[in-house]
Amino acid sequence: MKVKVYIRLKEGVLDVQGQVVLRALRNLGFEEVEEVRIGKLIEMELSDGDRERVKEMCERMLANPVVEDYEIVIEDGKD
Amino acid sequence: MKVKVYIRLKEGVLDVQGQVVLRALRNLGFEEVEEVRIGKLIEMELSDGDRERVKEMCERMLANPVVEDYEIVIEDGKD
Repeated sequence: MKVKVYIRLKEGVLDVQGQVVLRALRNLGFEEVEEVRIGKLIEMELSDGDRERVKEMCERMLANPVVEDYEIVIEDGKD
Repeated sequence: MKVKVYIRLKEGVLDVQGQVVLRALRNLGFEEVEEVRIGKLIEMELSDGDRERVKEMCERMLANPVVEDYEIVIEDGKD
């Protein structure tokens, strides 16, 4: 079972890494860039499980629920 | 124009961070996890531009073309 998890900083949380990349892109001449936010893309292969189980992984380890949101996409297998 | 860029390590490139997360998940009891690969999710807001321009950003700054692949998804605007 293939699973993708997208981890994003919650809206309103300052994205320092994104701001650094924004500035660097503008310095390279990409002045059309207005905002950059950087998150994580976690791709997993599981021998078994379902969305509830992946949610538990996110809550316990993959994301920091205080400042991050997660989105789970089950590519195949049970949902 | 909203753009998402997914940055992934190329196949065959050792994902050290992914291996650490894999081990940590298994130690927490998630023994069904067989593989973890970790990439970046970059979300940008642009005042103008097209896929070619975003590709240029990837090649010049966002990705390391030696070890990383990138996937560009234009959410609205010109493609």
